Amino acid sequence: MKMLEDRIRKDGIVREGNVLKVDSFINHQMDIPLFREMAKEWKRLFDGKPINKVLTIEASGIGIAAVVASEFNVPVVFAKKSMSINLDYDNYETKIQSFTHKKIYNVIVSKKFLAPEDHVLIIDDFLANGCALLGLLELTEKAGATVEGIGIAVEKGFQQGGDLIRSKGIQLESLAIVESMDSATGEIVFRDQPQQS
Amino acid sequence: MKMLEDRIRKDGIVREGNVLKVDSFINHQMDIPLFREMAKEWKRLFDGKPINKVLTIEASGIGIAAVVASEFNVPVVFAKKSMSINLDYDNYETKIQSFTHKKIYNVIVSKKFLAPEDHVLIIDDFLANGCALLGLLELTEKAGATVEGIGIAVEKGFQQGGDLIRSKGIQLESLAIVESMDSATGEIVFRDQPQQS
Repeated sequence: MKMLEDRIRKDGIVREGNVLKVDSFINHQMDIPLFREMAKEWKRLFDGKPINKVLTIEASGIGIAAVVASEFNVPVVFAKKSMSINLDYDNYETKIQSFTHKKIYNVIVSKKFLAPEDHVLIIDDFLANGCALLGLLELTEKAGATVEGIGIAVEKGFQQGGDLIRSKGIQLESLAIVESMDSATGEIVFRDQPQQS
Repeated sequence: MKMLEDRIRKDGIVREGNVLKVDSFINHQMDIPLFREMAKEWKRLFDGKPINKVLTIEASGIGIAAVVASEFNVPVVFAKKSMSINLDYDNYETKIQSFTHKKIYNVIVSKKFLAPEDHVLIIDDFLANGCALLGLLELTEKAGATVEGIGIAVEKGFQQGGDLIRSKGIQLESLAIVESMDSATGEIVFRDQPQQS
């Protein structure tokens, strides 16, 4: 999506170690009018799919998911991270490793809010190694729900997550795929995606 | 707001110890079309105020804040919870005690995203003892930003937070104020708010 790529070039900050900071418009301050344009693009890309629910994971996925769900006119369910195992509740549960925070989280979704009749669009801000997405896919599988597709704002195309998800035959639409970036010059190269606006 | 009160009566669950669960439509599964109606109500209640930013705190405030910000056509900034002190970053920082999770969090907002020229609407899902809101107010004060008002989905009117905030002269608009609830019968009594729809 050209609008998002332009914004990443303008306001994204490339740091050493392949770190891309987009906290001024995606995951600390959130540019909601931009999110609305992203939501419209996903609506176009997933047109005709019987999506009745958006699934995401706290915290930085929730804002994008809420705006996307408003465009699709469906509810959001967000998976919750917990450092402790939650025994007093009827949840689907999995573990997700966070490389950013060097932790393993228990991630839960209540069995009340994910069911075999659900057709889910998964939304998240970032895709790198794919750990968070694989966790969300495991939760939907445990629930017997159908994943209609995955929408990602920024994919790091040089990490394994995207290939891993696409090899499962799931429609994955990343609105910007970074092929390479250079912390010395700040240059960012995006993958060409002809089907996108 | 009658629509929200009706929904709480229908789908809220009253538990012993004055616990009100609204996780089927507010803070685990999020009813985005309902959030849009709540956003319109806050737009009406804060009409004429020069709001240029919505401020909230992760995680369950983010979804409501995103939909509200879409109605006001402004960005959201969400304060981040951290168990560790974050020294590598230029942040405003405070501590917030969570009674639900029995923890004290460091809560941070980047100095880049909260500034003296900001006129902030604070949004959160719940108000009980007021600890989270007092923390957000402290962050805006450190930044020199102006708080134009606070919008809360559900206030527990029998706890101290609401009185505490109102005594500071801040316009606080809670769309449903629970005066009392009974876990044996499930009955919930709301405070009458004539200015609301």
